[in-house]
Amino acid sequence: MPMMPVTDSMFLLVETREHPMHVGGLQLFTKPDGAGDDYLAKLRHDMLENTEVRSLFRRRLAKPVNSLGYLAWVEDNDLDLHYHFRHSALPQPGRVRELLELTSRWHSTLLDRHRPLWEIHLVEGLNDDRFAMYSKVHHAVMDGVSALRHLQGILSDDPSATDCPAPWGSRSPQRPRRPRPGPFDLLRTARRTTEQLAGLAPAAVRVANEAFREHRLTLPMQAPRTMLNVPIGGARRFAAQSWPLDRVRGVASAAGVSRNDVVLAMCAGALRDYLIEQRALPDAPLVAMVPVSLRTRSDGGEASGNQIGAMLCNLGTDRTDPAARLAVIARSMRDGKRLFKDLTPLQVLLLSALNVAPLGASPVPGFVNNTRPPFNVVISNVPGPRKQMYWNGAKLDGVYPASVLLDGQALNITLTSNGDNLDFGITGCRRSVPHLQRLLTHLDTALAELEYATR
Amino acid sequence: MPMMPVTDSMFLLVETREHPMHVGGLQLFTKPDGAGDDYLAKLRHDMLENTEVRSLFRRRLAKPVNSLGYLAWVEDNDLDLHYHFRHSALPQPGRVRELLELTSRWHSTLLDRHRPLWEIHLVEGLNDDRFAMYSKVHHAVMDGVSALRHLQGILSDDPSATDCPAPWGSRSPQRPRRPRPGPFDLLRTARRTTEQLAGLAPAAVRVANEAFREHRLTLPMQAPRTMLNVPIGGARRFAAQSWPLDRVRGVASAAGVSRNDVVLAMCAGALRDYLIEQRALPDAPLVAMVPVSLRTRSDGGEASGNQIGAMLCNLGTDRTDPAARLAVIARSMRDGKRLFKDLTPLQVLLLSALNVAPLGASPVPGFVNNTRPPFNVVISNVPGPRKQMYWNGAKLDGVYPASVLLDGQALNITLTSNGDNLDFGITGCRRSVPHLQRLLTHLDTALAELEYATR
Repeated sequence: MPMMPVTDSMFLLVETREHPMHVGGLQLFTKPDGAGDDYLAKLRHDMLENTEVRSLFRRRLAKPVNSLGYLAWVEDNDLDLHYHFRHSALPQPGRVRELLELTSRWHSTLLDRHRPLWEIHLVEGLNDDRFAMYSKVHHAVMDGVSALRHLQGILSDDPSATDCPAPWGSRSPQRPRRPRPGPFDLLRTARRTTEQLAGLAPAAVRVANEAFREHRLTLPMQAPRTMLNVPIGGARRFAAQSWPLDRVRGVASAAGVSRNDVVLAMCAGALRDYLIEQRALPDAPLVAMVPVSLRTRSDGGEASGNQIGAMLCNLGTDRTDPAARLAVIARSMRDGKRLFKDLTPLQVLLLSALNVAPLGASPVPGFVNNTRPPFNVVISNVPGPRKQMYWNGAKLDGVYPASVLLDGQALNITLTSNGDNLDFGITGCRRSVPHLQRLLTHLDTALAELEYATR
Repeated sequence: MPMMPVTDSMFLLVETREHPMHVGGLQLFTKPDGAGDDYLAKLRHDMLENTEVRSLFRRRLAKPVNSLGYLAWVEDNDLDLHYHFRHSALPQPGRVRELLELTSRWHSTLLDRHRPLWEIHLVEGLNDDRFAMYSKVHHAVMDGVSALRHLQGILSDDPSATDCPAPWGSRSPQRPRRPRPGPFDLLRTARRTTEQLAGLAPAAVRVANEAFREHRLTLPMQAPRTMLNVPIGGARRFAAQSWPLDRVRGVASAAGVSRNDVVLAMCAGALRDYLIEQRALPDAPLVAMVPVSLRTRSDGGEASGNQIGAMLCNLGTDRTDPAARLAVIARSMRDGKRLFKDLTPLQVLLLSALNVAPLGASPVPGFVNNTRPPFNVVISNVPGPRKQMYWNGAKLDGVYPASVLLDGQALNITLTSNGDNLDFGITGCRRSVPHLQRLLTHLDTALAELEYATR
């Protein structure tokens, strides 16, 4: 029984009803030419024939699953594919709006810890005859970056390719199972786990105590208190939309900034408009936590979360002029104010939640009002497919990430490049972030304003 | 802030990911004559206009919701009806099978503790043009009997009545809100809660210790160990079907037994066939826990769970002859072997789970194998509407209860009378009870065999 590295188990240990720790993704497909009425039924049938399940998707928690003891994965020899792969439909009128509503519901419920920690929905009933897929994987199994890599691995840039595996499969041949570990191997794994735990714990304690709780560490920026930095409930809202990469590229080259700066400026403009609408725009500029990849091109194989860092970015939401906001953002990102360089963005997020509801302790009423958030919002740009991709002939129109929320961070914007588009997925706490879908309109406005300002 | 009686709060305290403590119900409707294509869209729209929410459905837990401190309800002044009332659709081909599959999924997920503890799905897409409604209410808010009473309260026996309230509404005028309690009232409520707790705790401790854990109390029957009496996972299966009340009545009068005896014999025959199929029929007869109402006709108003008792019934599953099984069951029910008369059936169920996974303690591996279950299955017959009922002209074809499962009791059969039918709802742990829907076939066979044996 392989021990679970603490980087996996921490996501299980901190998970509660209000803080599901899974990452989700919504994919939108156009059916191939000539697809008949029975296309989806046949597709579903064919997929269920794919019983070759990638080892990551076969492992489940060793029992007991709800004690502090679950530091081990075991292989599920009795995987119930009909449980994990679900057939779903949109109610009338079958617009994207109904798809987002269903996605919100799916993203709000916990995965079953007695089974491999993933679910995939094949969704019919879109009024434009496209179909969708929503997938959900526990963060202990894979992070958002790895999930996107996995998705790319099952797709093809050839529209006529018909050998794409099911989403739980794998194109690369499964590595042969290692021989059963002997007692010394187990000891060694145990020691390795302890070392990782030892490596993480002091950092976590240091950050939690010094940075947030005792205010001794000076953060590189001062984030204002906002309506987004509150304790959250368990229900989610999800919104998604694509924008042409060319439009973002155009602003970037006209202003002499990076594409990511433009994306951040879109988000800044949208957040400003949203907060004004909610009569909740703070005087001080919002601060975003921006994960940055420290991976080099040569890193192959499974992504390790520890090759990512986190930057703080001044979003300039106090500026009325879009061009001025873009300049503030570009300067802020150039300054490279690194937040907690020893920790991954998700660890940073976890620690920011300590600020609101101390983990492991009972919530202290009013605590949230007495401390400032380390940042206001997570904005994450995850690399996706560079070319137009297909899945057994079906054209991938969009791939929208749905992310993890924690106390104190009620909104997350994650986007990914997908061929000629940038696909934005916005995840919010249903209670704290009303009218989330308006952020889509505001993002659109913000991009148009940036184009106008840099024309 | 009214204190929560311990009879409510216990369902919140014992709830875990694997043991959601809500009751569900699936209702099937035929649209009224002349219903157009936009019937459901209009229905949904009209329902959302019904913002008059019954006080039970407006209350939510006072924060913090996940500590042992949540002994109080507060009124949710910001109820999000679009969250609680959901619009859903069946995937193709839209058979009852797809409806049951979706119901299983909905019944497997936890309610959000930050909101009033209920959800209702309006379901379209049935291939026979009917529609369905799935509702889910936390047991802390209402038990199965009260949920059925509430349903009857919103229906009408007049097909032309158009004044039926929404499922969250109430026909009876809301009682005026009591004046805010003074400090003495609060003290009194606190004292009353303490008394209830004191009243329950010794009984619970006595039963848990004496009956199950230290084996000192001799149960009136010896239930065998079976595949149904194991720790359960969080996922559920749900199956449902109606049988004509006349057929059951026919067997009852031919055999000179009660209708409930016939129902129990149907279940006994079905369980026998199922366990034979699974190669898991024990030599000794299965023992059912059968809730019995101790209510008198004159009891009006809100049902209190404490007016129900629990009987043990020998299901005679060791007999091959259906008539002999029926005779064993009728005799067993006449003997009236009462189980724990101071406790409600759900308290009994809770305590039976202690046997498998001691609450509050970490699970002891192998514990389940060392003790015998107090009973093998819960079979519950809940009174439903006596006449054919309608909801704003839509004919109620079926009302199928979905129940609570706990460790050690992986299967629950709950049925309700509905006009000329008996509607059976079967809830099972997805992991422990494979091919649950076969029980429907076996129930049908068992009824036919009983008819043949008593013809």
